[in-house]
Amino acid sequence: MVQRGQGMAADIAEQPGGFARLLDAAHLGAITGIAAEVAGRRPRSVMFVARGTSDHAALYGAYLTEIRLGLPVASASPSAITLYGARPDFTDTLVVGVSQSGGSPDLTGVLSAARETGGLTLAVTNNPDSPLAKAAELAIDVAAGHERAVAATKSYTAELLALLLLIEGIRAGDGKLPAEERAALDKLPQLAEDALADSAADELAQRYRFASRMVTTGRGYAYPTAREAALKLMETSYLPALSFSGADLLHGPLAMTDPDVPVLAVVGDGPGGQSMRDVVNRLAERRADVVTVGASDIPGAAGRLPVPAVADERHSALLDILPLQKLALALALARGEDPDSPRGLKKVTTTL
Amino acid sequence: MVQRGQGMAADIAEQPGGFARLLDAAHLGAITGIAAEVAGRRPRSVMFVARGTSDHAALYGAYLTEIRLGLPVASASPSAITLYGARPDFTDTLVVGVSQSGGSPDLTGVLSAARETGGLTLAVTNNPDSPLAKAAELAIDVAAGHERAVAATKSYTAELLALLLLIEGIRAGDGKLPAEERAALDKLPQLAEDALADSAADELAQRYRFASRMVTTGRGYAYPTAREAALKLMETSYLPALSFSGADLLHGPLAMTDPDVPVLAVVGDGPGGQSMRDVVNRLAERRADVVTVGASDIPGAAGRLPVPAVADERHSALLDILPLQKLALALALARGEDPDSPRGLKKVTTTL
Repeated sequence: MVQRGQGMAADIAEQPGGFARLLDAAHLGAITGIAAEVAGRRPRSVMFVARGTSDHAALYGAYLTEIRLGLPVASASPSAITLYGARPDFTDTLVVGVSQSGGSPDLTGVLSAARETGGLTLAVTNNPDSPLAKAAELAIDVAAGHERAVAATKSYTAELLALLLLIEGIRAGDGKLPAEERAALDKLPQLAEDALADSAADELAQRYRFASRMVTTGRGYAYPTAREAALKLMETSYLPALSFSGADLLHGPLAMTDPDVPVLAVVGDGPGGQSMRDVVNRLAERRADVVTVGASDIPGAAGRLPVPAVADERHSALLDILPLQKLALALALARGEDPDSPRGLKKVTTTL
Repeated sequence: MVQRGQGMAADIAEQPGGFARLLDAAHLGAITGIAAEVAGRRPRSVMFVARGTSDHAALYGAYLTEIRLGLPVASASPSAITLYGARPDFTDTLVVGVSQSGGSPDLTGVLSAARETGGLTLAVTNNPDSPLAKAAELAIDVAAGHERAVAATKSYTAELLALLLLIEGIRAGDGKLPAEERAALDKLPQLAEDALADSAADELAQRYRFASRMVTTGRGYAYPTAREAALKLMETSYLPALSFSGADLLHGPLAMTDPDVPVLAVVGDGPGGQSMRDVVNRLAERRADVVTVGASDIPGAAGRLPVPAVADERHSALLDILPLQKLALALALARGEDPDSPRGLKKVTTTL
């Protein structure tokens, strides 16, 4: 008999290996080639289209684009194109569709429309034979392998790393990673092993066994992590989990926090994390129960899911999500749910 | 003694008058002039920056930009600029800051940075003397008057209408509304009166008295409404309210819906609403308790908050939010909360 959650546990455990695979000569070489091609075409803006978990990877790509490439990020609503027939001019725009399955018709529709109107289209998928990969001019295979659970984990972190490699390659101009970046990323598989070896997430799941809601928050590079953590908690534990950028949290939803609402705050050691310290203080004033995710203890927080320190905050998104995936899995099991097959969900969601 | 919720009730009731004011010769003329100026500068993309409620108005502006102007929408994260020092090239980009107070330093920072790097900057605020309005090259006063409650209502719908007038004016080229658009909008104040006269929201508040969470959903022009409704419910009733585009809802959060979770679905009569009918069906299959907002009864829904029919779905965003604001107010009162002064919130939120 297959144990509940075995699929999701296996997917989660494969992530260090997934990082190592994307960094091997064959996969890195493929991304280098695409990054060089994109750099040569000199896009003036980048647009991401994605849904669900992949949309959080795309959000990470958006931060990288703005901060590392200094390019504006365009953010089209698929429905504007697929439902309302909008045909924005995509000249000089790199349009990136991110999708685990590459099978959602609305994303393929956006990429096809973008290609027709002069956009440079790129698919980032876990399935190189998918309709999305075929509709795009360029395609990156994130090579995460078959994902067992419906809730995406290893395909998410593979998308994150693929987007990082792509964007750092575009920044370099010739597609190749600078030596310093390469050295930092070569440590990533081991750091991911270390993050996954920690057991704090399993203990925290017991503490949240009877929580009726959760709030997740982060800023900058940590905001996609907060969003993705909330989605995992919703998908596997059916817990209403609200995610906010630390700034937006202070603009309204703060009213909703009280001692009964556990808050998971992703607080790194860079600029995003620095600004989150004030948010944690404000939450502590309201006696919210704050647990942080990061490499350092934060004043005002009741606990911490530890992750290894990284030299630059942009790499933390690849690690911070790991204990949160473990938390979602452990909490689902503690609640008697089956995280491998959430009720009402299919692995490939088709929306028009 | 001031009755609880009196301020929010008065703000809500003033919205038909607010629409009429923005459509009078003086205010419309000011927006026409700005629209003509923007059209003459021929931006190639539009970026919105905003927080909280105003971010939902900006999202509406983003849909209008893509669908009505055929321009890509850039969507910068303020933190990329204010925390990480990103300086994207804003040449040929119209950068619109939307803020009730115009007092948040992060938005002012983004507009200042955009102006320095060649962007055409526009502030849309309820305070023409605010730092945001002064930092921008162009400014629109949404003229909603002093807002009594912390939870924004009349400033939100005034921002929506101001953005609609701006974008339709840019589309026309000379800033002026085409006769057909003008005729449709002249009916808006009366339609808003009709929407507010309906009492279904008050009855629904009794039904949700003991709900422990809510889900709101919509697509296209209705998605900002779903987002804003969720924020109002959180701010005034401290209810965890999750909002999803109808498409994203099917990509994961659907698992979270069950007969105990009330779903508010904004379902209009245009393309966005058509695609939502399938979402309502899927929710009904999961025995979710779905109440729709719109002009037509939808199969599978348990009830409806009625709003008057409009000729084009893009106008429905100005009306659909009205019964939802009433619902947030009535639900807060039914729960013994004070919607005028939510705990933990200030009217002007300053984030860096």
